[in-house]
Amino acid sequence: MNGMACKNPAMVQASDFAFSGLHIPGNTSNAVGSRVTPVAVTQIPGLNTLGISMVRIDYAPWGINSLHTHPRATEILTVIEGSLEVGFVTSNPENRHITKIIKKGDVFVFPVGLIHYQRNIGYGNAVAIAALSSQNPGVITIANTIFGSKPDINTDLLAKAFQVDKSVVWQLQTKF
Amino acid sequence: MNGMACKNPAMVQASDFAFSGLHIPGNTSNAVGSRVTPVAVTQIPGLNTLGISMVRIDYAPWGINSLHTHPRATEILTVIEGSLEVGFVTSNPENRHITKIIKKGDVFVFPVGLIHYQRNIGYGNAVAIAALSSQNPGVITIANTIFGSKPDINTDLLAKAFQVDKSVVWQLQTKF
Amino acid sequence: MNGMACKNPAMVQASDFAFSGLHIPGNTSNAVGSRVTPVAVTQIPGLNTLGISMVRIDYAPWGINSLHTHPRATEILTVIEGSLEVGFVTSNPENRHITKIIKKGDVFVFPVGLIHYQRNIGYGNAVAIAALSSQNPGVITIANTIFGSKPDINTDLLAKAFQVDKSVVWQLQTKF
Amino acid sequence: MNGMACKNPAMVQASDFAFSGLHIPGNTSNAVGSRVTPVAVTQIPGLNTLGISMVRIDYAPWGINSLHTHPRATEILTVIEGSLEVGFVTSNPENRHITKIIKKGDVFVFPVGLIHYQRNIGYGNAVAIAALSSQNPGVITIANTIFGSKPDINTDLLAKAFQVDKSVVWQLQTKF
Amino acid sequence: MNGMACKNPAMVQASDFAFSGLHIPGNTSNAVGSRVTPVAVTQIPGLNTLGISMVRIDYAPWGINSLHTHPRATEILTVIEGSLEVGFVTSNPENRHITKIIKKGDVFVFPVGLIHYQRNIGYGNAVAIAALSSQNPGVITIANTIFGSKPDINTDLLAKAFQVDKSVVWQLQTKF
Amino acid sequence: MNGMACKNPAMVQASDFAFSGLHIPGNTSNAVGSRVTPVAVTQIPGLNTLGISMVRIDYAPWGINSLHTHPRATEILTVIEGSLEVGFVTSNPENRHITKIIKKGDVFVFPVGLIHYQRNIGYGNAVAIAALSSQNPGVITIANTIFGSKPDINTDLLAKAFQVDKSVVWQLQTKF
Repeated sequence: MNGMACKNPAMVQASDFAFSGLHIPGNTSNAVGSRVTPVAVTQIPGLNTLGISMVRIDYAPWGINSLHTHPRATEILTVIEGSLEVGFVTSNPENRHITKIIKKGDVFVFPVGLIHYQRNIGYGNAVAIAALSSQNPGVITIANTIFGSKPDINTDLLAKAFQVDKSVVWQLQTKF
Repeated sequence: MNGMACKNPAMVQASDFAFSGLHIPGNTSNAVGSRVTPVAVTQIPGLNTLGISMVRIDYAPWGINSLHTHPRATEILTVIEGSLEVGFVTSNPENRHITKIIKKGDVFVFPVGLIHYQRNIGYGNAVAIAALSSQNPGVITIANTIFGSKPDINTDLLAKAFQVDKSVVWQLQTKF
Repeated sequence: MNGMACKNPAMVQASDFAFSGLHIPGNTSNAVGSRVTPVAVTQIPGLNTLGISMVRIDYAPWGINSLHTHPRATEILTVIEGSLEVGFVTSNPENRHITKIIKKGDVFVFPVGLIHYQRNIGYGNAVAIAALSSQNPGVITIANTIFGSKPDINTDLLAKAFQVDKSVVWQLQTKF
Repeated sequence: MNGMACKNPAMVQASDFAFSGLHIPGNTSNAVGSRVTPVAVTQIPGLNTLGISMVRIDYAPWGINSLHTHPRATEILTVIEGSLEVGFVTSNPENRHITKIIKKGDVFVFPVGLIHYQRNIGYGNAVAIAALSSQNPGVITIANTIFGSKPDINTDLLAKAFQVDKSVVWQLQTKF
Repeated sequence: MNGMACKNPAMVQASDFAFSGLHIPGNTSNAVGSRVTPVAVTQIPGLNTLGISMVRIDYAPWGINSLHTHPRATEILTVIEGSLEVGFVTSNPENRHITKIIKKGDVFVFPVGLIHYQRNIGYGNAVAIAALSSQNPGVITIANTIFGSKPDINTDLLAKAFQVDKSVVWQLQTKF
Repeated sequence: MNGMACKNPAMVQASDFAFSGLHIPGNTSNAVGSRVTPVAVTQIPGLNTLGISMVRIDYAPWGINSLHTHPRATEILTVIEGSLEVGFVTSNPENRHITKIIKKGDVFVFPVGLIHYQRNIGYGNAVAIAALSSQNPGVITIANTIFGSKPDINTDLLAKAFQVDKSVVWQLQTKF
């Protein structure tokens, strides 16, 4: 899936299984007010084939970890600081929105492949630690993928998909 | 995953492995101008645990099979009639848009979990047959999931996710 | 399983996910009166690890897609043109023959590893599109494998396996 | 796959993981001169989901374990007594016959889904112990499946598949 | 594996995916000076089949999370507070001890099935959050399993396994 | 997992699937009075990716195959000669010891990842043939791993883990 090779077991060292820095707050000075710090097979080569990885997520006040999916992983998240609104939407045809306010010490699960998000609903910063069931889970941020792909998706197609004028699509495409 | 039980092998019949009607054009009189007819474990109980299913897709002129993902399946599609623009977008951070015009007899692959679409680019109807690598692949249509979930996702959150005014979000939410 | 390498995700192109020509009838001028056109990982490199592939099958009048198994895949087939007798046989000790006449628009499933076949039961050509739950499903045609292997399987052994005179085995071995 | 339920882990007993009698020679007084004694999930309920099983195979002089496949398992076999000719045939288009004479203490592997056999090439009895990579591997004996299915496969189809007169097919069908 | 049933997707609620209390320090007043608080399929039913779970681990000064394995999961751990000595030992014949001192914000991986441990090497409490690549990873604490099983493992056998007098085994068996 | 490459299917030979010598008694002149002769992917390259392997185990009178786990495999064992006490211990919190006396022709299963053992309880030699559900199952002998790792695990940690004086730990560490 990722083309990474496995190291000879007799040559592995502790550093192949370690990473430092997950206590450092990520920079949330951006349009969505959040930052994800990943610890996956790129950061820890020893994770290859082992089916797990971790992330730290920082949220500015009212910052969001925007709507996204992980094509190859379920996510389990716990709040270290602050309060979050979290949610995911089930697949067609129900598209049920499963949502909850979670606070420090709460845990929430986002099933594999479903669109989900978190939002800081407090006036201070929030922090979460989450784990994903793949060493290379992948992230697909919906807005960036649809309105910021390289090259652009056809405007007529997007206008029909979202049932809006092409001018709205253009407006959206300039943002990503 | 789907809670369906397996039948005693000694009791299975040919009808447990069969379905009829995939030659019948689907009704494309709807907002997107397309219709998907699924043949999965709900339609053929004998597919349970076997990891494959099939669909027929009909497209009115300029109709689209809107942006969507399958959380548990790769898709392989062949055009039976007409010409289609097809595409998928790779995951973050590249978000590369891989796209191609395909016509009768062409085959195209949409890798598991990625956002993809098809659009009829001809003046007549188009028809495709596709197969998916799960007996229960799931479908997540992006626009319906994000702007038509039940209940709605918070408007402030959507406005920030798509970097638009809340009025644009409200406009989108009325469509789904 | 197939020793094919994965391409760097940043370098993939639309052509890595595409194939042309599945609308072209295969040449059925052969002993069994059928032809399979495969679209698997050899034809579409982007299928690697994705667990699916497709085939077109052409049948001359009364032509057969002879008794065979796929060691690594379940098959789902739909008739595009004509009428087919299809069937598979369950494993020991029952060896139940599950069979059905299917026509245009019908779908039938052949579970992984079981011996199965299709036969054109009409006076015109027949065409089917099928998908398999592996990018490299493999095909084992029973008659060719048993009576046409290189080198031959021992004649005494075959005579005992099929409970016939060695002369019948020799007759069979000359055909494959 | 087999519809067997799992027992509450707190209630399992040693007898759920045990079987007796694999030292007892199987009765080889039959047309092929061999007998397989299986130890799979039917014999040991505790094997469920664990992906392995075992068999004892007895061979009369010149007896064969006839051409067969396991749809869900690779087999590894060791000779306990006597000498065997063993072989398997690779999939299309090569259909290479990989064969070897093995004797007491030799081990041979039959890859998943391939047609394979063993034949006692000595004047005394032979015995093998083999293991399979599934708790429910399934067995498809080719001759029984093709010429002894219930109901019969169509004679015209079989005649074309094996390129012989229907009279030869009838002869074969009376044997199974 | 665990006999837990899946709920109808249309009936799931946010509470099926949530758990509270992971911010509460576990009681470390015990012989090893540590406490594991699990958040797995028993605590969150919605985790079933999703392949991930989480734990909080509290360590008193010099407390240890004793030598153990997870038969079905890899573990990824991050230090929230304090400093830990962590390690695992590779399989035979090398039995290499891979060890490291990790502190707040460091991450370490324990590959599936290997014996591993953590030890608080500071004078204050330590806290870690870890995730495991199974919704039901299982825990096998070596000392308890070997010297505290119900009923006991034979003393002669243990004496030979650890190359000590039976009196040492008895001493160990009284502790667990 | 093991970094071994796959051979081109067209080049494989019978010798890639064969091994000789499993009838030769292993040398049991060692501290535990047993010897395991493995037949896995290192001995038979053709086993790669096929998910099975085999071993012969010889036991001197009262010899033990000491407490160990296989991180990636379930084991199924049959007694060829002699009588064995066999057992495994379930995971926390029950740590139930499932044990049985088995003799020639008996079969016993050791589920994946659990600590297990065999002991010859007769005055003659004993022999078993076992199979494992991985081509590279791995072996972790508990005593060697814990008291004989390179470098040593910290003595204070081991003393706390086993609730004994450091002098007992030192005694144990000198043995491995």
